[in-house]
Amino acid sequence: MSLTVVGSIAFDSVSTPFGERERMLGGSAVHFALSASFFTDVHVVGPVGDDFGEEHFELLSSRGVDVADIERVAGGRTFSWRGHYEADLNVAHTDDTQLGVFADFEPKLSEASTRADVLFLGNIQPELQRRVRAQCATARLAALDSMNLWIETTRDSLLAAVGEVDCVMLNDAEVRMLTKEPNLARAARALMEMGPRIVVAKRGEYGAVLFTANGFFALPGLLLEDVRDPTGAGDSFAGGFLGYLDMQGTEHPSEAALRRAVAYGTVLASFNVEEFGTERVVRLTESEIGERYEQLRAMTHFEQPG
Amino acid sequence: MSLTVVGSIAFDSVSTPFGERERMLGGSAVHFALSASFFTDVHVVGPVGDDFGEEHFELLSSRGVDVADIERVAGGRTFSWRGHYEADLNVAHTDDTQLGVFADFEPKLSEASTRADVLFLGNIQPELQRRVRAQCATARLAALDSMNLWIETTRDSLLAAVGEVDCVMLNDAEVRMLTKEPNLARAARALMEMGPRIVVAKRGEYGAVLFTANGFFALPGLLLEDVRDPTGAGDSFAGGFLGYLDMQGTEHPSEAALRRAVAYGTVLASFNVEEFGTERVVRLTESEIGERYEQLRAMTHFEQPG
Repeated sequence: MSLTVVGSIAFDSVSTPFGERERMLGGSAVHFALSASFFTDVHVVGPVGDDFGEEHFELLSSRGVDVADIERVAGGRTFSWRGHYEADLNVAHTDDTQLGVFADFEPKLSEASTRADVLFLGNIQPELQRRVRAQCATARLAALDSMNLWIETTRDSLLAAVGEVDCVMLNDAEVRMLTKEPNLARAARALMEMGPRIVVAKRGEYGAVLFTANGFFALPGLLLEDVRDPTGAGDSFAGGFLGYLDMQGTEHPSEAALRRAVAYGTVLASFNVEEFGTERVVRLTESEIGERYEQLRAMTHFEQPG
Repeated sequence: MSLTVVGSIAFDSVSTPFGERERMLGGSAVHFALSASFFTDVHVVGPVGDDFGEEHFELLSSRGVDVADIERVAGGRTFSWRGHYEADLNVAHTDDTQLGVFADFEPKLSEASTRADVLFLGNIQPELQRRVRAQCATARLAALDSMNLWIETTRDSLLAAVGEVDCVMLNDAEVRMLTKEPNLARAARALMEMGPRIVVAKRGEYGAVLFTANGFFALPGLLLEDVRDPTGAGDSFAGGFLGYLDMQGTEHPSEAALRRAVAYGTVLASFNVEEFGTERVVRLTESEIGERYEQLRAMTHFEQPG
């Protein structure tokens, strides 16, 4: 079993009411890979510039992540993002985005990466996602994320990409926007009619909903007293979700396995937001993951009428 | 066991993307009472005008609700509200509010109402809530709802009222606003430090969170394909929650009973929003409630790691 992720590798400069950081290691592929690394072998595909140092490769390698397909572009600059959050951390503002080496990125996957069992197409231009998808033809489970920018500017490409994956993972507002259907349950059904057999609607602090042919499953987020930086929560969720499914190793995961995967996604996202960037996840342990999984079970359990 | 509710009795004129209605029977006390009537005996306290007809009393009586303390003010007009919802039903706009007989309302409870075991202070002026609370001195469980208007205009009165009840039921944004604490878990703790031993944060379609000294419990909302009118959902939730607790009949409900009460509140709210006003709840059956309770259990259940 192994998992390939393509997505942004970035330097994030983030300000929240709880502090700020300059040029932290971030990006969708990084948050995803660190999270998934607790469950399976992960190959990261994406470009970086000269400013990407050995310490950044080392941070990923220390969690067992394969960095062979991280392409260092000579003379280039790593993708960077600057943003800030309001007192209500659900409200994010982008202050600056520098595409850098992503402007001319052309995915080239090694054989190890193309042979992955599970593929995650992080939030990048849909045509790039499709090219990576084509190179990983034998993946038994391919999933994609996207964002409002691509829904607005490259809608047709994104719909084509959706038709080529098994699983779509979007924010609930994006599910509604992409399908032009304000009701989430109907919108998820519309997405499944395009091909995917699994839709995960992420809801930020409110948790996530899983839609399959069998119906739906919903979990609230953990109720945390310390939330410092939500950046990367969605990708940490996806890493826990797909990492767990890859570890299970079946082509058609059972409904029970998909539900546990949503729970692991929720758990990994909850750790991600407790500190800035990757600070919390890089020192996370398997036993902490197991404890919080049990906490999530306990906080959502209720009994039959009595 | 019996339950007294004080709150608005209203005519609601509502427009949503799915239709519109003129002067439907509504208001916090009405939605609450109909919902709670599936579990216990309910006494409604509140004023109406000459325009409140026998058919409106009859609608409440048909569900066994005691209307003896609904005061008909000669020459007065019943409270009325007009509003509309956007395609995203989470976004509501108030177009008109006519206080009518509520402008001079002075609560006068019959002995039957004052002897209730459980008391719900619906969303009205906090000083009125306090006067009703004082008349129901022996209630073993008193709860209140409120809204941003009272937080902004009568904050001190509202905080005094909070200190006099066992349970606070507010939207999550209102919990944050009232405590000036953006983190929900910390905000709920701050409310409990003012006296209440139970805090329920309602989250609209995202469900609800229960906070007690034992920790927290969270449930997502049902995922409904047909949502036509969210008006009264929070009061239907409160009616299911407190109605179930009154039926249980203990002074200090167990954590398990409180959790089941949240589930019943979620179930009743889910029926409320399926159609306009009280249309769905008035023809609801106990077996439908039981089926949806089981559906809610099924859609939130996940197993231990395996």
